[in-house]
Amino acid sequence: MPFFTHTLPNGLTLIGEPSPAARSAAVGFFVRTGSRDERPDESGVSHFLEHMMFKGTPRRTALDVNLDFDRIGASYNAYTSEENTVYYAAVLPEYLPRAVDILADILRPSLRTDDFDTEKQVILEEIGMYEDQPAWAASDHARKIFYGPHPLGNSVLGSKESVTALTRDGMHAYFGRRYAPTNIVVSAAGHFDWDELVKLVTAACGGWARGEAGRGPRSEWAGEGGLHVLTREKVQQEHVMFQAGGPPADNRLRYAADTLALALGDDSGSRLYWALVDPGYADSADSAYYEYDGAGCAYTAFSCEPERAAANLDIVRAVLAEVQRDGLTADELHTAKSKIASRVVRGSERPMGRMQAIAAAWSYTGEYRDVDAELANFDAVSLADVRAYLDAYPIDRSTVIAFGPLDTLAGVAGKPV
Amino acid sequence: MPFFTHTLPNGLTLIGEPSPAARSAAVGFFVRTGSRDERPDESGVSHFLEHMMFKGTPRRTALDVNLDFDRIGASYNAYTSEENTVYYAAVLPEYLPRAVDILADILRPSLRTDDFDTEKQVILEEIGMYEDQPAWAASDHARKIFYGPHPLGNSVLGSKESVTALTRDGMHAYFGRRYAPTNIVVSAAGHFDWDELVKLVTAACGGWARGEAGRGPRSEWAGEGGLHVLTREKVQQEHVMFQAGGPPADNRLRYAADTLALALGDDSGSRLYWALVDPGYADSADSAYYEYDGAGCAYTAFSCEPERAAANLDIVRAVLAEVQRDGLTADELHTAKSKIASRVVRGSERPMGRMQAIAAAWSYTGEYRDVDAELANFDAVSLADVRAYLDAYPIDRSTVIAFGPLDTLAGVAGKPV
Repeated sequence: MPFFTHTLPNGLTLIGEPSPAARSAAVGFFVRTGSRDERPDESGVSHFLEHMMFKGTPRRTALDVNLDFDRIGASYNAYTSEENTVYYAAVLPEYLPRAVDILADILRPSLRTDDFDTEKQVILEEIGMYEDQPAWAASDHARKIFYGPHPLGNSVLGSKESVTALTRDGMHAYFGRRYAPTNIVVSAAGHFDWDELVKLVTAACGGWARGEAGRGPRSEWAGEGGLHVLTREKVQQEHVMFQAGGPPADNRLRYAADTLALALGDDSGSRLYWALVDPGYADSADSAYYEYDGAGCAYTAFSCEPERAAANLDIVRAVLAEVQRDGLTADELHTAKSKIASRVVRGSERPMGRMQAIAAAWSYTGEYRDVDAELANFDAVSLADVRAYLDAYPIDRSTVIAFGPLDTLAGVAGKPV
Repeated sequence: MPFFTHTLPNGLTLIGEPSPAARSAAVGFFVRTGSRDERPDESGVSHFLEHMMFKGTPRRTALDVNLDFDRIGASYNAYTSEENTVYYAAVLPEYLPRAVDILADILRPSLRTDDFDTEKQVILEEIGMYEDQPAWAASDHARKIFYGPHPLGNSVLGSKESVTALTRDGMHAYFGRRYAPTNIVVSAAGHFDWDELVKLVTAACGGWARGEAGRGPRSEWAGEGGLHVLTREKVQQEHVMFQAGGPPADNRLRYAADTLALALGDDSGSRLYWALVDPGYADSADSAYYEYDGAGCAYTAFSCEPERAAANLDIVRAVLAEVQRDGLTADELHTAKSKIASRVVRGSERPMGRMQAIAAAWSYTGEYRDVDAELANFDAVSLADVRAYLDAYPIDRSTVIAFGPLDTLAGVAGKPV
């Protein structure tokens, strides 16, 4: 695949992987900001701001934004994570100019006070709704406890208190600080012409004022260990989560970390599947490697009936210790690599998938990886690489958080939450 | 795209759309059987049998099935509907022979009595779990009431009573009656060689005994109208569903029906979105056209706080009556066609999507439609076609079912369910 990059004089970067055989195009604006970039008195502002982006600009009302996306049949959305806020659309090739025009326009929003007040209620309802979902609440608590003082522990949604305290002017100041063109990458994939895209984005965004946007500490984090029991009586299932440090996104060990997580906790045919799910001890058990800017995390979790939690905790600890000691078998490595190759290829078959993949690789490492390069990177993972990963980031040195009805687990008393 | 078909001497049909540019391949076994093909004393057997297919064959234990799919990194699954039971896998091209071997093998299962007894408990738990989901229970009740004596009203899951009463030998008899090669289409799309696929399927399925498998009445159905209020106290939201007759899958009016449903009830920028969701009167409102073998259905639904249900019912009735009288505007038709074109193209970008699309078109109409043909069919929909559809299948002559906490709605007393 051809790959192109271009940087406007104001610092905005474009990247693109045109694919003439594709029949649609995807374009996204990746803003390098999220909850980790919020000050304590701004908690939740990144996500709230993402909502406000759809509420109108000097050129468009909120209704116009909706109608304009609709008229071109766009599949569009946005999301906010710990470190990225992303606005994107997939369209038929002939509508790419209009999609770029709308996305660029909403990235310079009016942020009207009355819209801000109305949308704040929507956000508060969303927080209430998520807090009612045990699996979400469990992982939100787990992240806060694991990361402690590290900014990756910041909540994406924020709390009802922090969101209530946000002001329109405070949001505007955050926007000015974080949405500078130097902090934005525009990514495109699928059926489009690169030169035309550069012209479109230059016309739409070339006038944006230059600015600077850095990021605070990007240190690695291994957690402080221990078992933390959080008691919420009205929840049915006990949710138990293990978190250990992992390689950052720009570390080559990411390939071994991802492969090992799949062998350990894929939802079919993994160590944890056979140890917990197949025999019916747990409803779910999974493992994942999360990569971040400067840090990483090996995450393992299960949920089960409360009375099974203690026995399952012992099983998972034994599995993690065994893998830490002996690594994977050659057969496990082979199966995990087959699954990953299939995942990489199938994820690449849509422009939307490629648009996201090249943006992630670019923003984390400043490099372009085509599908073949990514396949080769995974295919090269050896048992020795798995060993090197485990030595550098021991998966059995986890911080463990239990969330659910139990008021004590493995001798640790629960704290009500 | 090239398209191929082949029928084995025993009646099994293969269809395939090879796409050399694709990097994966998808293959599915479409069995033309589902709840509409069950006798009253067999209710739920199609779905239960789908589960049993993964429990082992003379050549493979259940564990082997899981491990063999895993080793090739397959993304595999199965589902059962009112009229189809489908088993499928997406894999890298080099693994297609093994995927065909596994799928063909599980289609001739052992159906061991002890596995049957164990899996029956899983199915009963699944039924209990679904019954606890208000949206699912609402639509299951709505379908039964709308279809009344028509076999499309049969429940896919069956009831706890009907599944409890099923026997292994009864399932085996159903299997013998419905899984004859004449009743199965093998569909493939993506990166594969047609001649090789024919050889693989011939080797794996050529020995299957010929048989016959028809289908009972395939009559159209318009419902008997009326408002039915089903009261379940512990549900929070009121779910209201409107169902009217629609064109069968082999009727050209399907394109107008699908387009109108999108203009009426897409989840953004549709008549119902602006009338109910945008002003906050309902949490959700949507409309869809469902196509079946010999029948069709225009479905509209909303869910809301109970106290809003009566007013919303009036709003939806007014919207349906207005559309029935005046059709769509040119602008609405244009937007709906943009959305559909985008949906068709994006849905075609993965072999999995094409494999399903060509199988659906083939089994319903015996014809092949490539992406361009399907786009042209939708693009040709005119306001006059919309009018013709509405005249043939009036959307304001609905059977309305309300499910939720209300014990009366619009003067109709609720029946507890």
